[in-house]
Formats: sequence, structure tokens, C-alpha cells
Amino acid sequence: MTYCLAISVNEGLVFCSDTRTNAGPDMLSSYSKMHIFRPDPDRKFCVLSAGNLATTQAIVNQLEVDLEQTERNNLLSFDRIHDVAAYVTEVSRNAQMDAQAKVGAVGIDASASLLFGGQMRGGKQEIYLIYSAGNFIAASIDTPFLQIGESKYGKPILDRVVRKNTPLEDAARCALVSMDSTIKSNATVGPPIEVLICEFANFDSDHYVKLDTDDAYLVSLRNIWDSKLKEAFASLPKFDWEQHLIGE
Amino acid sequence: MTYCLAISVNEGLVFCSDTRTNAGPDMLSSYSKMHIFRPDPDRKFCVLSAGNLATTQAIVNQLEVDLEQTERNNLLSFDRIHDVAAYVTEVSRNAQMDAQAKVGAVGIDASASLLFGGQMRGGKQEIYLIYSAGNFIAASIDTPFLQIGESKYGKPILDRVVRKNTPLEDAARCALVSMDSTIKSNATVGPPIEVLICEFANFDSDHYVKLDTDDAYLVSLRNIWDSKLKEAFASLPKFDWEQHLIGE
Repeated sequence: MTYCLAISVNEGLVFCSDTRTNAGPDMLSSYSKMHIFRPDPDRKFCVLSAGNLATTQAIVNQLEVDLEQTERNNLLSFDRIHDVAAYVTEVSRNAQMDAQAKVGAVGIDASASLLFGGQMRGGKQEIYLIYSAGNFIAASIDTPFLQIGESKYGKPILDRVVRKNTPLEDAARCALVSMDSTIKSNATVGPPIEVLICEFANFDSDHYVKLDTDDAYLVSLRNIWDSKLKEAFASLPKFDWEQHLIGE
Repeated sequence: MTYCLAISVNEGLVFCSDTRTNAGPDMLSSYSKMHIFRPDPDRKFCVLSAGNLATTQAIVNQLEVDLEQTERNNLLSFDRIHDVAAYVTEVSRNAQMDAQAKVGAVGIDASASLLFGGQMRGGKQEIYLIYSAGNFIAASIDTPFLQIGESKYGKPILDRVVRKNTPLEDAARCALVSMDSTIKSNATVGPPIEVLICEFANFDSDHYVKLDTDDAYLVSLRNIWDSKLKEAFASLPKFDWEQHLIGE
């Protein structure tokens, strides 16, 4: 499986993905699911992918091939990011139909879902969830994050912490906590973890980090979170019969 | 949906369940999924149920009916709790087969899964996950909790906190946090929350609480957990470029 998430806060965008892929429990490997596109200095896009690896590689390849062919629709063709998302969705749908036609007969699920987001200079920043079915939704003020893959383990902390006005690096840390909890609870999601942090309207530099299990920052974050969570737990109120016991 | 969990620690057993049932999103109602059996002073059992409500009610009814018929196998027939679990599994399997024969043709999923546990005087305490397929597993030293239904949201906190030597009431609080996080993140799991706390080898008294949304203890636990979690979050280490910014 896979776990990817994207967060859109006022200060910018966060993309986060694990790298574990598996074809059965005895066929684990590590592939990046984060695909960054800078087709010109005024556009920055990120695609996070879940699902059949052959299909997601075909989708990313097609996005690259289209960029080399100026007569085709590609990541440079549109002025509104919604239209770019529609184009990526179309590429995804075609790649899935093509794959399904080839491998569907032997019972392989060739579907894929994507998170897509970014910004074009002068335009708004957006993140989208592109369903395998071939439609897509944007995040909203009330729902500033989107997830694909093994999304349930890491959702409670996002629900608690992430709001539209959450500082950008705090959103990135929350993504890491969400990812780390998922990795702890589900063996099909695994490190290294990739994080891309894109400041609003900054087209000159982004922060990208790739954190393996023993990365000093990740180890520190994980240890502090774990000990603080246990402290938090120890501070929870006692049941009334425990208070009686203490009073005795 | 449903979320139920059972925890087995050295000091005793914890059972916890939500009460939301739904037949589609516009057909929500509230039913207890916790069924407590004290067939004699030396036996205490608890069944938590998930799945088709008609089927789970039929299972519980059958357990009750069997108790009235001394010539049948029932919750009093066996000396080992493993054999009681096998009997409950058999009742579950029969009820599911019966229901499937009746409603399967119209496309209704009549399956059900259960958590079953308890203790008989002089015997060990156990919890079991009874799969809808008709087999069952016990918890173990390494895996001291079992879950059915919407289990993923609430698993990370259990993975972090619950060990075999966790104090009994701490295990119950962890069950409540796990349940509360699930309720926050998934609308198909809802209050009131039922918790049963059974001290090891104590056949005279258990602690049972039913906590609705506005219950003072639950509100207090939820608020403290939420604020402590945000404190924990605020204490996480900064990325190196943030430290540079602070240093400037």
C-alpha cells in the first residue's frame, strides 16, 4: 500500500509520501511516489501517486512526454490550475484504461489515484485528489488536507491540528507525525518519507527533505512525540472510583 | 459502521464499543453493541458485535435462548474459555448462514464479526476476535488488544500505549481516547460509548460506564487530551532552516 497526503494552508503547500511498494507481502520494494514538475520558472507542481506502480509510472511518464511535445496539451498549456488538474486527470484515466485493457483479464487491479497540487505565478495555490474513477476534488477552507492510500491511521492528528491558518512548517510536522503513526501501525507503509514544502507565491526555492528511518531529525521528532504523548496520556482525568481509592 | 475493541492486560480486561448503527447515511440509529453475560456467579463474559444488526441480534438472542435450554450447548457447558469461544463462533456462523440464506439474494451483506472475552473462576482471562468467516483468534502477550469495525483511526494510540503490564484503568482510558479519535474522524462511529472494566479474578463487581457526548468525564478527558496533544505538537523539533531563521 501507500500513504500520501497534501495540505494547503495560507502560507503554502505541504506534500508528504512514503516509499513502500509491495506486490504481495514477500515482494516489498522502495519507490518514490513524489513527482515534482517545474516546467517553467512560473509553475511548480507536485504529483503524489498511489495504486498500481506500473500505472502510476505510465502516468508520470506521459506527463513528461507531453511536455516534450509542444503541440499536445501538457503542464504548460493552461492558465488556471483547475484546468491543469483536469489535464492530469485525463492522463491518469487514459493510462488506467490502457493498463486495464492489458492486465485486467488476469485479475490485476491496474487502478491509481493521485494527489496533485501546486501554483502558477499570479494564480492561487491548490491541491486536488484525483480519484481512480477519473474525477477530482479540490481541498477547501474547511478541509485543508487530502489523503490517498492508507489514510485512516493518520487522519485523527490532522483532524485535530491542521487548520487553514496553521503555520506552514507546523503543517509539515503534522504530516510527518501522521505518516510516522501510519508507519508504526501498518507494515505496508514505510520509510524513507519524502516531504515537499512550498511557500505561497515563492517560485525560487522550496524545502524538500527525504527522511530515512534513522534520520536524526525524524528520530528526534518521533521520540519527542512518543514521550510527550505518554505524558499527555498520564495527565488524563481518573475515573471516579480511582479518585475514591486515592482518597482512602 | 462500528468500532469495538477489547484489551487484555495483567490486571484485567477492558471492553469498549460505540453505539452507532446505520443503514445508509440517512438511517442512523443507536444500539448497544455490548452484551454482558453472567450465566452463573463463576463466569463473566462480554460480546461486542459489528456487522449486520439483524444478524448480531440473532446471535445474542441465540446465546440467551441456549442458556434457557439445559440440554443444549451454552455459555455454561464448557470448562475452558477457548471452548466457550468456539461455541460462540458456532452460534455466529449458524446465524450468519441463516441470515445469508434469507437476505443474500437481495444483495444484503448479513455478515457479522465479534469480540468475545471473559473469565471463569480459576481459569485464565481471554479475549477473542471471532471473524465473520467462522474462525477465531485470541489476543497474545505481544498483541494485547483486538479490534473490529472501523479499527484504523484508533490503532496508533493503542500501539503506542497498551502493553500487557499497562494498569487496568489506563488501558480503559486508552480505549476511550482511541474511541474518541475514531468518532472525531469518522461519522459512522458515534456515542454513547460503553466501557466495561473487569478486574482479573474479581467475580463480584465490574466497572461499567456509558458515556454520552456531553458526559462530564468524557468532556474533561477529551478536552485535556486535545490540549495536551497540541502542547506535545508545539514541542516538536524545528526543521534546520527554521532554526536558521530563529538565529538570524
